[in-house]
Amino acid sequence: MNDSIDKIKHYCGIVGIHSTTERNIPQDLFFPLFSLQHRGQEGAGISYLNNGKLVTYKDLGMVSEVLGRYLEEKRTSTVGIGHVRYSTTGGNLVENVQPIQASCNKGDLSIAHNGNFSNSELLKSKLTEKGAIFGCTSDSELVLHLIAHSMQDTFYKALKETLCYLEGAFSMVMVKDNNLYVMRDPMGFRPLYIGHKDGLTVCASESCALDILDITDYRSVLPGELIVVNDDGINSEIFATSKRKAQCSFELIYFARPDSEIFDISVYESRLEMGRVLAREDGDPSQYDLVMSVPDSGNTAALGYAKESGLNYELGLTRNHYTGRSFILPSQEKRELAVKMKLHPVKEIVKGKRIILVDDSLVRGTTSKIIVKLLKAAGAKEIHVRLSAPEVKGPCFYGIDVPTKEELISNSKNPEEIAKYIGADSVKFLPVDKLKTCYKNSNDFCYACFNNDYPVEPKTGK
Amino acid sequence: MNDSIDKIKHYCGIVGIHSTTERNIPQDLFFPLFSLQHRGQEGAGISYLNNGKLVTYKDLGMVSEVLGRYLEEKRTSTVGIGHVRYSTTGGNLVENVQPIQASCNKGDLSIAHNGNFSNSELLKSKLTEKGAIFGCTSDSELVLHLIAHSMQDTFYKALKETLCYLEGAFSMVMVKDNNLYVMRDPMGFRPLYIGHKDGLTVCASESCALDILDITDYRSVLPGELIVVNDDGINSEIFATSKRKAQCSFELIYFARPDSEIFDISVYESRLEMGRVLAREDGDPSQYDLVMSVPDSGNTAALGYAKESGLNYELGLTRNHYTGRSFILPSQEKRELAVKMKLHPVKEIVKGKRIILVDDSLVRGTTSKIIVKLLKAAGAKEIHVRLSAPEVKGPCFYGIDVPTKEELISNSKNPEEIAKYIGADSVKFLPVDKLKTCYKNSNDFCYACFNNDYPVEPKTGK
Amino acid sequence: MNDSIDKIKHYCGIVGIHSTTERNIPQDLFFPLFSLQHRGQEGAGISYLNNGKLVTYKDLGMVSEVLGRYLEEKRTSTVGIGHVRYSTTGGNLVENVQPIQASCNKGDLSIAHNGNFSNSELLKSKLTEKGAIFGCTSDSELVLHLIAHSMQDTFYKALKETLCYLEGAFSMVMVKDNNLYVMRDPMGFRPLYIGHKDGLTVCASESCALDILDITDYRSVLPGELIVVNDDGINSEIFATSKRKAQCSFELIYFARPDSEIFDISVYESRLEMGRVLAREDGDPSQYDLVMSVPDSGNTAALGYAKESGLNYELGLTRNHYTGRSFILPSQEKRELAVKMKLHPVKEIVKGKRIILVDDSLVRGTTSKIIVKLLKAAGAKEIHVRLSAPEVKGPCFYGIDVPTKEELISNSKNPEEIAKYIGADSVKFLPVDKLKTCYKNSNDFCYACFNNDYPVEPKTGK
Amino acid sequence: MNDSIDKIKHYCGIVGIHSTTERNIPQDLFFPLFSLQHRGQEGAGISYLNNGKLVTYKDLGMVSEVLGRYLEEKRTSTVGIGHVRYSTTGGNLVENVQPIQASCNKGDLSIAHNGNFSNSELLKSKLTEKGAIFGCTSDSELVLHLIAHSMQDTFYKALKETLCYLEGAFSMVMVKDNNLYVMRDPMGFRPLYIGHKDGLTVCASESCALDILDITDYRSVLPGELIVVNDDGINSEIFATSKRKAQCSFELIYFARPDSEIFDISVYESRLEMGRVLAREDGDPSQYDLVMSVPDSGNTAALGYAKESGLNYELGLTRNHYTGRSFILPSQEKRELAVKMKLHPVKEIVKGKRIILVDDSLVRGTTSKIIVKLLKAAGAKEIHVRLSAPEVKGPCFYGIDVPTKEELISNSKNPEEIAKYIGADSVKFLPVDKLKTCYKNSNDFCYACFNNDYPVEPKTGK
Repeated sequence: MNDSIDKIKHYCGIVGIHSTTERNIPQDLFFPLFSLQHRGQEGAGISYLNNGKLVTYKDLGMVSEVLGRYLEEKRTSTVGIGHVRYSTTGGNLVENVQPIQASCNKGDLSIAHNGNFSNSELLKSKLTEKGAIFGCTSDSELVLHLIAHSMQDTFYKALKETLCYLEGAFSMVMVKDNNLYVMRDPMGFRPLYIGHKDGLTVCASESCALDILDITDYRSVLPGELIVVNDDGINSEIFATSKRKAQCSFELIYFARPDSEIFDISVYESRLEMGRVLAREDGDPSQYDLVMSVPDSGNTAALGYAKESGLNYELGLTRNHYTGRSFILPSQEKRELAVKMKLHPVKEIVKGKRIILVDDSLVRGTTSKIIVKLLKAAGAKEIHVRLSAPEVKGPCFYGIDVPTKEELISNSKNPEEIAKYIGADSVKFLPVDKLKTCYKNSNDFCYACFNNDYPVEPKTGK
Repeated sequence: MNDSIDKIKHYCGIVGIHSTTERNIPQDLFFPLFSLQHRGQEGAGISYLNNGKLVTYKDLGMVSEVLGRYLEEKRTSTVGIGHVRYSTTGGNLVENVQPIQASCNKGDLSIAHNGNFSNSELLKSKLTEKGAIFGCTSDSELVLHLIAHSMQDTFYKALKETLCYLEGAFSMVMVKDNNLYVMRDPMGFRPLYIGHKDGLTVCASESCALDILDITDYRSVLPGELIVVNDDGINSEIFATSKRKAQCSFELIYFARPDSEIFDISVYESRLEMGRVLAREDGDPSQYDLVMSVPDSGNTAALGYAKESGLNYELGLTRNHYTGRSFILPSQEKRELAVKMKLHPVKEIVKGKRIILVDDSLVRGTTSKIIVKLLKAAGAKEIHVRLSAPEVKGPCFYGIDVPTKEELISNSKNPEEIAKYIGADSVKFLPVDKLKTCYKNSNDFCYACFNNDYPVEPKTGK
Repeated sequence: MNDSIDKIKHYCGIVGIHSTTERNIPQDLFFPLFSLQHRGQEGAGISYLNNGKLVTYKDLGMVSEVLGRYLEEKRTSTVGIGHVRYSTTGGNLVENVQPIQASCNKGDLSIAHNGNFSNSELLKSKLTEKGAIFGCTSDSELVLHLIAHSMQDTFYKALKETLCYLEGAFSMVMVKDNNLYVMRDPMGFRPLYIGHKDGLTVCASESCALDILDITDYRSVLPGELIVVNDDGINSEIFATSKRKAQCSFELIYFARPDSEIFDISVYESRLEMGRVLAREDGDPSQYDLVMSVPDSGNTAALGYAKESGLNYELGLTRNHYTGRSFILPSQEKRELAVKMKLHPVKEIVKGKRIILVDDSLVRGTTSKIIVKLLKAAGAKEIHVRLSAPEVKGPCFYGIDVPTKEELISNSKNPEEIAKYIGADSVKFLPVDKLKTCYKNSNDFCYACFNNDYPVEPKTGK
Repeated sequence: MNDSIDKIKHYCGIVGIHSTTERNIPQDLFFPLFSLQHRGQEGAGISYLNNGKLVTYKDLGMVSEVLGRYLEEKRTSTVGIGHVRYSTTGGNLVENVQPIQASCNKGDLSIAHNGNFSNSELLKSKLTEKGAIFGCTSDSELVLHLIAHSMQDTFYKALKETLCYLEGAFSMVMVKDNNLYVMRDPMGFRPLYIGHKDGLTVCASESCALDILDITDYRSVLPGELIVVNDDGINSEIFATSKRKAQCSFELIYFARPDSEIFDISVYESRLEMGRVLAREDGDPSQYDLVMSVPDSGNTAALGYAKESGLNYELGLTRNHYTGRSFILPSQEKRELAVKMKLHPVKEIVKGKRIILVDDSLVRGTTSKIIVKLLKAAGAKEIHVRLSAPEVKGPCFYGIDVPTKEELISNSKNPEEIAKYIGADSVKFLPVDKLKTCYKNSNDFCYACFNNDYPVEPKTGK
């Protein structure tokens, strides 16, 4: 049912854990991965050291489905990594689920990766020439090949050499013997946090995954930082620096969980601020009767709008979270039914009202069109759609699944035309320069999908 | 994981459909039952006329699991009923899932029932003396036995006779041949709505289940009303009247979906009002910094509180809706982990704040205790818990699963003691007389679990 | 895949266990039910006394699927019954799976039944008049209703009264409190054995189910016998006698497991003898080159034929027992594929040979036609089909699922015509009078489906 | 339950299909793979060309479970390969299921392999030095690496070069673009057949897999033969020759299906002959009363024994083929129960008899011990165990899973001691030189596990 909802999709979330004493590491991985479930719901897996041997278990499915078994099992270990995954084109193949474990001349390794290499085609082409075989369609296998092909005499040197080959976005964790390796690309596209408590070191895509383990002493892994965690402690170095930083705007706008901190910024507060800015852009609030959100993605920004404007904040759309096993809707009116089963207008609230409806972004416009229709059918007088994201106009080469340029409605229609298309009375996007006012160090962000200013150009294999 | 969350549980939701033309009735039943999923998530089923023969399919599980198959199948029919169920003591046996179909001297019947007969023990004892055998532990089988034992010469007369035997709470639908029977007890304990559109008549526990089928012309089935729907139209009569009405208070406080109308009252608006009243009870808002809810049950009342008091409304607790297949948490700290996996404080919001925390009710106090602990750990300065329900002190004999008197914290502790027990700085309940101000026709409600004034005493079999 | 194989189907197998000391009764029931799996593969269930309370667990599926869980659980009890079921018309509904448990004025009871009442329509009609409701389409519920409607003052008297109402075939076990009741109809249609060892009493449809529990001291329950097993021992009486006995011929020909004893007869030896008689009927063996069977149903009779005739016995058809989860064959050539996936000719053996092919029975001829085709394609020169059953011409009212008269090939074709239809060079059935020579006390058998001499006429409800 | 049965286990079966016209290739692969289910029941998979793109689907489970979906789907293709697998040490990981698909500098390839390379450790070590990474523990990945590392300018040349690196046992199929590659090692360890009919070419481990597709025009792929099948036809060459041939003795003794032809020999006839030779070894038949087999593995040899000796052949052990989903037996007496649930003595037959009991082989003796005990308990007077395999004394490096030397009973006990250990009155094995008399070209076989004469020594990685 999910795929009928028109949203930009994320690739994954990662976790790495090292402990100086024996613990039930698979169980320790479960909870932070569960907390990152919103970053990928179609596959999950873990690798951990088991009696000195690296083992991997992964499958298609939610964290609770794939890894729930580890809650009932007692397994001691000291180091492990985990991954949740949203499947991209190439299909829901279990081969693509991570971590990816392999044995090579540097030993037995396993890797979990969030992001996309912008030069993967080129690297793949070079490696293929040298005889590498690729068993899955994921970028991440490249890292293992590069390490194996390196002529450096230690794994650590080979890893550093490998990191210098990689371009684009990568927050990664690896495990080899009793070592956890943590690294983030020099531009810092994807978030990555590390924290510790009593000999336990945990690294995860968002701070909410550290919270669940009661780890409060944490920080952002730095762009270009490589950290090794083992029984000798936590050793860090900067393997490469980049003047240009490129933290993903969409992480704060939509992907991250509202109670997380990423990029040293509170997700909740940045979204509140986006709503406030939208309100200031709109000016005189007396043209409207109330503010409400498309739940849950628009909740915080809508609240910010209400606070700034002084308008009534209402929970005018109820969201049904029951799904159980997935099912297939009858083809006719499929998308509309999917939305109606998920979002329900509160008629008494919307009836006769001039409504500010806040959502995070508008991609193809298909879902927004249905929501506007539902609200008008419930009696709404006017619907003014406000988006906390700017107009999405281009693809992402760094780990986000954006529809094609042709599908992106902002490439063919201006806001007035979009309003007409979706049946709204007005549509306004947060301009890029205003979005920047919501971010600390706003120059350290990537806005490429809005303004075409790509920090790294993708390289093809030719 | 669900059972570690401390909530009062509901028994079920029902749906009935009749159409003057052939339709895919099983599919038509799916959508309203899906909309009533919040009323029962442990069993689902339907009965419908299939080529002149009544058939039933039911199983343990969510609506999408049990009935999802009907979305892909083409089956024509004109009448059917459906049920969602929350399992009570007696276990999750498929035998107890409804509808219950049987053949008897009046023909083939099927029934779906929401509520509890307060004289079921007595009736069961009488019927047993006459040779009746009981295959399940559900009350609802009684209705079929009474109909079969009636000496009336028509089904309709037998049904009316049967209704006169029943005491307590019942909103019910039955199907026999091409007739849909809809009935509600004379005190009107449980909600029941009926609506129609173009030859399609639909009856359901809440109006949200009619909305999903785009039925906007609806009304409440009256207390004591018996409606027959068939190709001759919709015929209604009052089979019994009662001066005393007894609409369930908890339906509006907690059970019903916020976008529903029940008892001719908007659920959303009544909850907003409960929050407003709580605010007026509290007086001077300057003692507090912000209002937030325990999502999702406290959302609307918290918003009402904020509106009335002028205090900041914040989404200070994020709720994780991902669950996938159920799993078993490791025993130690089980309950606490369950809450932590579900509810996440937004630290930046709660830090250093004096917080009004609104929830619907406080039953045993176990979950509230954990939430308060989480918020304090996240830096909250003060937590003032406000409940939109009065203190729950007694059981329910009419279809609600309330813990035993011993388990109900309000039987052993006053609000101050409860505050101390759960670690809050204060706890206040909405007094019953104030709750009444939130209801239209407030004398038509049952407040027995709060004030021990039971509209019908349960009768035992002796 | 199974339903494309043309075989007469059986209804069920039953087991009852009582122990004077606490045992894991559900586990004790598992093994004999597993041994009776050939009597019904579509549903299984058990009822047993659990801390003084009767509980039932049953579902659609094989014994290992439905009851495998009890191998891993520790449950103590002293008495229980079990059932395996082949589903008849009315569909594979879990409601029809046995045992059937109910509570009534005589207490909590559960019953498992093998057979069919020939007066069930009449009884159902009478009971319905009295107000009984029927929740399933199985005959067996009747017994519970009759007991509940009896005005006798004890359960035992009510049970005896009930037995006097029943006509037709019934081997049954019941459990009430700590008592196991075992009964067999006065004509003895279906087999039933009882044995004991060290305080453990076990009753089952065939002796092979006692063997698995190492019970070697057993006997046939007598026609018309009612046995009560409890801590006072095993008490037996004859509740009714019948001059005419009617043991099912097909039990020995096909249903029972070859290593079982039923009706005081060795199944294996009786089948060997059927093969020997077929050989004597055929006369001069020099017309043929070898004898082989359609495995596994024809194995023993084929061996008997070979022994008597002195012809070569060969395993000319290999049977594939792998199935795993059931799957649906593509529609075209469905039946033929199903047979080809199951039965494989050994070409070197059949090539150029004049073959005696022994099977147990020929019902519609559809499967035989495919087998003959396969063997001819593998090079067989002549195929002479020999059946250890006589020509099947009529229905069974006592618990066997025979195709309709129109479908039974022997109603429209004589053996020569059948041979032509299935492509065989000859077809011969074992005549009824010769079949009788294979049975001890051959007058105590029912041959109604062959010769239309029905021991009890079915009674309708009018 | 299976693993408690003491048998030598096989690794796999393979199938390859090419068609000159579009067909439903996944469905075409299903049937021969189903026919090879006895060669591996723990994993199955296929690769096929789908709109010019190679795709693979595989999983743990039986053929019907993993691939049953393709019976209902319509997919056109012209070429594909398939695999069934028995899992070895290393665990039941889906990563180890075949075919293995990869992309490399020679294109997209997929391979399915039956056998074991005896120099895999050495090759793996060399490849690892060159930077290869290994994702699974299976040998077969080596082939893909070797092809990718070859500097030959065409795939075909690279494949031939690769084949020259491989030592030990391999019958393999590969698919690349619209070409099917079929190859068998120069010693011919594992069987492989190829046949065609009307533009359809099918290759499979045993002839029974061609029979199911009605392909009767087939031959053995020659040792050292490489065949390319594409739209230009079937082109074959010998890529290497070996004087020494080494066809696996156990394929004929036990693994292959009795209706198959492998190594140009009828499996059925060779087993009959093994039984005949055993009888001749025994001499005077009057010392015994009857011959019977341990079904199904000993069936044909037992029949051969009976024919030669003139002794009575009886079906004295019945085998239960019902299993359904796997289940776990309670630990105590686990193995014995497993055997009792599977094999049932026919008491009337065995009672008081001096029995020749024929089985294919005796490995650890654990199962035989239980069977002898069962038969004695059923009254057998003497049990004389006869094995159609010689004494198994050594491991296999070519694709068979033999217990360790310590576990093999024939390494520590002579036949008299084995008889004593298993409770039999005598035990005799077929001597290697007599086994040879049952094989055409008996010098072309491998008897290494019996006589330690290994055709190729395994090479380690040092």
